[in-house]
Amino acid sequence: MRSEICELLDIQYPIIQGGMIWCSGWELASAVSNAGGLGVIGSGSMYPEILKEQIQKCKLATNKPFAVNVPLLYPDIDTHISIIIEEKVPVVITSAGNPNTYTKHLKEKGIKVMHVIANVKFAQKAEAAGVDAVIAEGFEAGGHNGREETTTLCLVPLVKSKVHIPVIAAGGIANGAAMAAVLCLGADGVQMGSRFAATQESSAHPQFKQEIVKAGDGATALTLKEITPVRLIKNDFYNQVQKAYEQGLDTDGLRELLGRGRAKKGMFEGDLQEGELEIGQVSAQIDEILTAKEVVDATMKECLKVLHKTNSAYNFE
Amino acid sequence: MRSEICELLDIQYPIIQGGMIWCSGWELASAVSNAGGLGVIGSGSMYPEILKEQIQKCKLATNKPFAVNVPLLYPDIDTHISIIIEEKVPVVITSAGNPNTYTKHLKEKGIKVMHVIANVKFAQKAEAAGVDAVIAEGFEAGGHNGREETTTLCLVPLVKSKVHIPVIAAGGIANGAAMAAVLCLGADGVQMGSRFAATQESSAHPQFKQEIVKAGDGATALTLKEITPVRLIKNDFYNQVQKAYEQGLDTDGLRELLGRGRAKKGMFEGDLQEGELEIGQVSAQIDEILTAKEVVDATMKECLKVLHKTNSAYNFE
Repeated sequence: MRSEICELLDIQYPIIQGGMIWCSGWELASAVSNAGGLGVIGSGSMYPEILKEQIQKCKLATNKPFAVNVPLLYPDIDTHISIIIEEKVPVVITSAGNPNTYTKHLKEKGIKVMHVIANVKFAQKAEAAGVDAVIAEGFEAGGHNGREETTTLCLVPLVKSKVHIPVIAAGGIANGAAMAAVLCLGADGVQMGSRFAATQESSAHPQFKQEIVKAGDGATALTLKEITPVRLIKNDFYNQVQKAYEQGLDTDGLRELLGRGRAKKGMFEGDLQEGELEIGQVSAQIDEILTAKEVVDATMKECLKVLHKTNSAYNFE
Repeated sequence: MRSEICELLDIQYPIIQGGMIWCSGWELASAVSNAGGLGVIGSGSMYPEILKEQIQKCKLATNKPFAVNVPLLYPDIDTHISIIIEEKVPVVITSAGNPNTYTKHLKEKGIKVMHVIANVKFAQKAEAAGVDAVIAEGFEAGGHNGREETTTLCLVPLVKSKVHIPVIAAGGIANGAAMAAVLCLGADGVQMGSRFAATQESSAHPQFKQEIVKAGDGATALTLKEITPVRLIKNDFYNQVQKAYEQGLDTDGLRELLGRGRAKKGMFEGDLQEGELEIGQVSAQIDEILTAKEVVDATMKECLKVLHKTNSAYNFE
């Protein structure tokens, strides 16, 4: 039996890997797709020629569907979209921008489109733009994040009640129990970022992967809300940002402090002090580096087990 | 069949009503207990003589167990504790303070003790202090809140994995689907505040109840983090606080702006502009004023239905 989202995307399990800058290249995307989920290349950290190469390598490594995540504010966006169409990528996940810009164009080319949202208004806007599904991402998620700070537990049922297309839950999900939880909320599937960032196939720096494993309760915070809210591990760089706030630094000052290449420095080059380490609150529950296939298999197995066990345990009639 | 927490508290359903200032007097507490959950008198807004009267009225209105919620930083705390013991209240829920102070004393008197926490460290501290259960309250919850900003979806499994006593999930739960979700996360029961604030038996001002019903997506925010983080409806008072932040007002200035009686003014007297309106993100999912019994019945019914339906729908073997 396959769910609606499995039919839509032609995948075996309703598990989508988050498209993450510096973590999700072709190795991770193809591994997730080969394991029965939807692997996603994160194009936000790629020049056009790199993206093209990554897509081509991904197609060689899997004959299953995969996706490219496209932040719509990316400067080379037109070139990215052209490459995606040219290379016949089956699914595109758009985020951080207006879903009206490319949805129709992509759909005309036979590409499925999903859009990441963090509130009801944008979910409805995305549905009106014609996307096939929305990814509802809660406050606990890593990386860039919504301004309303609505958590996954509150966001998913709200969005589900206001749109007619499938809703994927994202943020706070790293195992089968959390997957079971969001399915109970009405989600049609899950997107997991942090969990896949800490896999063998992730292109994150090994030091960053270890940092995810080490992260505990309260290790991350949402910051830089004036620029664009982002959830980071509280490292030296984060502390510098907080100090800047205390000293009343304005938005331009914050931008200067952030500078360029902070995320690459942290996540790809492994500079744990000066780099920006984007990860979700759920990192506190990630205790080992697994393969992508181990993550998919364990998540599905635990999800079904938890649903069965919880359904059996609760019988108050 | 009854769960561990039902056995512990001698209640029918694992539903605990949040002890809320200005909303949860004896009418609400006794109604919830009579409906099979655990009703809770919120003592944080009561002088000792009022608390005594409320407990006595509650005992006349129900012969089922009920609780008193005690913020441990309350100035009259010793008198409160004496009254609770004298009146033989069966369960005490402590919050906002050190669980070592009263747990042993209360337990010696045969009173069950639960403690509200927002991180693993305090959950373990509460367990070590001898409490019977912890209430793990996430970032989405209304009113006073933890500094780590960990959401219910992330907090519950973490706490559950680190303590051996039952864990009640709180924050973001207003219906049976959310209850099913947190049971899948390993919670032993739920605490619902906002949902019960908007019941007929709640002592919240009718205008405040309507404001909860009207609240949508993004209607609340966590603010006043320098004093003690609190989630409020974004009304005129909230806007004054944000303006004060922009103008760089210090903590003393914020305290002065907050002043005294803001919560009473908003929640009890119905001043929706100048009052402090403490409520959770889940208010966006609350669309009508029900009786406490309707809430308990509908929540249990939906919870069991959702668990059954989700378990049946997902079968990928």
